[in-house]
Amino acid sequence: MSEHLFLRACRNEKTERTPIWVMRQAGRYLPEYRAVRAKHDFLTMCKTPELAAEITVQPIDIIGFDAAIIFSDILVVPEAMGLSLKIIESKGPSFDNPVTGTGDIEKLTTTGIADKLKYVYDAVKLTKKQLDGRVPLIGFAGAPFTLAAYMVEGKGSKNFEKIKTLIFKEPVTAHKLLGKITKSVIEYLKGKIEAGCDAIQIFDSWAGVLPPDYYEEFSLRYINEIISAIKTEEIPVIAFPRGIRNLEVMKSSPCDVVGIDWESDLSKVKDILGSSKVLQGNMDPVILLSDEKKIVTEAGKVLDKIGKDGGHIFNLGHGILPGTPVENIKALVKFIKEESFKYH
Amino acid sequence: MSEHLFLRACRNEKTERTPIWVMRQAGRYLPEYRAVRAKHDFLTMCKTPELAAEITVQPIDIIGFDAAIIFSDILVVPEAMGLSLKIIESKGPSFDNPVTGTGDIEKLTTTGIADKLKYVYDAVKLTKKQLDGRVPLIGFAGAPFTLAAYMVEGKGSKNFEKIKTLIFKEPVTAHKLLGKITKSVIEYLKGKIEAGCDAIQIFDSWAGVLPPDYYEEFSLRYINEIISAIKTEEIPVIAFPRGIRNLEVMKSSPCDVVGIDWESDLSKVKDILGSSKVLQGNMDPVILLSDEKKIVTEAGKVLDKIGKDGGHIFNLGHGILPGTPVENIKALVKFIKEESFKYH
Repeated sequence: MSEHLFLRACRNEKTERTPIWVMRQAGRYLPEYRAVRAKHDFLTMCKTPELAAEITVQPIDIIGFDAAIIFSDILVVPEAMGLSLKIIESKGPSFDNPVTGTGDIEKLTTTGIADKLKYVYDAVKLTKKQLDGRVPLIGFAGAPFTLAAYMVEGKGSKNFEKIKTLIFKEPVTAHKLLGKITKSVIEYLKGKIEAGCDAIQIFDSWAGVLPPDYYEEFSLRYINEIISAIKTEEIPVIAFPRGIRNLEVMKSSPCDVVGIDWESDLSKVKDILGSSKVLQGNMDPVILLSDEKKIVTEAGKVLDKIGKDGGHIFNLGHGILPGTPVENIKALVKFIKEESFKYH
Repeated sequence: MSEHLFLRACRNEKTERTPIWVMRQAGRYLPEYRAVRAKHDFLTMCKTPELAAEITVQPIDIIGFDAAIIFSDILVVPEAMGLSLKIIESKGPSFDNPVTGTGDIEKLTTTGIADKLKYVYDAVKLTKKQLDGRVPLIGFAGAPFTLAAYMVEGKGSKNFEKIKTLIFKEPVTAHKLLGKITKSVIEYLKGKIEAGCDAIQIFDSWAGVLPPDYYEEFSLRYINEIISAIKTEEIPVIAFPRGIRNLEVMKSSPCDVVGIDWESDLSKVKDILGSSKVLQGNMDPVILLSDEKKIVTEAGKVLDKIGKDGGHIFNLGHGILPGTPVENIKALVKFIKEESFKYH
């Protein structure tokens, strides 16, 4: 498995072409996903290894991506820490009992996380069996700041006033919360790797809501702590700091790959990070709502920006949209598989 | 009036201290605003010159900002072009009849805009009288792309799939829409200047939803067209391209001042734009929810980043939040008025 295209690209080794997978590839744009979803709610799908495995493998069978990513949700970790999670897929997740202060933080548990999340490990094992060596399996977790944001806000937010006010007014308390989450995520990811994941992605989906001066102290250092704790030669780690402007800070991270959002100018990012990190991204997912001609043009632009130096994994700059026509994502994968040879 | 601190700062002339105003300063954080709002709906307040003037002047009397900005909404222009506007302040604005294609674009009117928006000019005239030369009055408009985004989506949006798909699939149609909006905005702003506005700000609130490769063609060129059409020696123009990463593109704009969002690293922006543009911004509005000590520390950081070269107007990097305690914004204004002398 370690010689698979995707894993070689993660390690910045020479590859014959650019690998491709997309965030949320096991998701609502697939009729086969919607068929399962019609019968089960989102969390049941996460917690039933047979369903999670089925959904994880669907886009490999149907679209032909170069990596699978285990179907799950970043918020299963806060749930295992004691918060009560609800996920309504169209509305986003919420917690009935958000963290409101020191007392709530003390109540959060960091022990037995792996036991409570055994269903994820079972899903990983089952998926690995079904993938049967065809493609590597990515495991993932939320970055501590992103998880803390959900845990304190109780749900998604426009301005993230609560978590940011906690950071601005009570930095010591904020660090206590982030430290507990970090400990839990480390235990969780170690279990995922042990269960068979071949690579790890850390989603810092709300990274962009921290002012630039605050990112390293309140988010990146915890991501780096996790990576240092779980990293081995065999398991590459992708960090996705969605929305940050100062991508330079990622240079000092022990991650192998940096996920780049579509708002970033990939040429500039390459100048800044290209010599130290593999880049993953970054086509705008809305492009996939247009037509094959446009998709191929835009995907070609992404390949052109990277050029012939390698160190690139093709992905979108955010999750694939539920309204994406299946033939459009198929056209993208076909194009990358057939045309990216020219850049290698 | 042209010798007022704020206008001199806009023209990058030497000033004795840094001027300060904040976006949405005539807004819900003020009990005096909420008292008026309790009796009238948002659009009635925009359309009744006496109310608009009263609300515009409130933050000058109560907080002591260095500039007033006329109370209004960017969407009065699309309304004058023929769309049916509803504003529910807590939910955001919406149009009952969004633009869905070429037919709808052809139906939009670009004539008689100034007649339909006479209530704004009347509000400007009345406000100027009430301000009585104390501070300059800023007039504003939405950038054509931001207005088009609202007009096509029908309301705010998470992914802006409709306007972006129009741009990706039908660029010629998109340009037709943007051209008509530009024509209307030019007429509108000329009227505002004639009515007495001393400076103009163009809000490109959704600039960040365009991929970087698309910003200049589908947004900035129209902003620049407007500025070239309305600009005189006396009336400085501020452009606020909220959310864009490639601030370099603003170098070539004929604007005098660039508004900087709080997500940007002001030190870097200064390196990029500081020699060609005055910078306005960029403290995170959430800082104002903390306490005086934190506010003063963070405001000091903003002043430090600009240093002693001048060319700065203090502002937030986004609108002041409704939950901001009045004593906190007062503390910020006091600090800037008393401490920014040291930097000049």
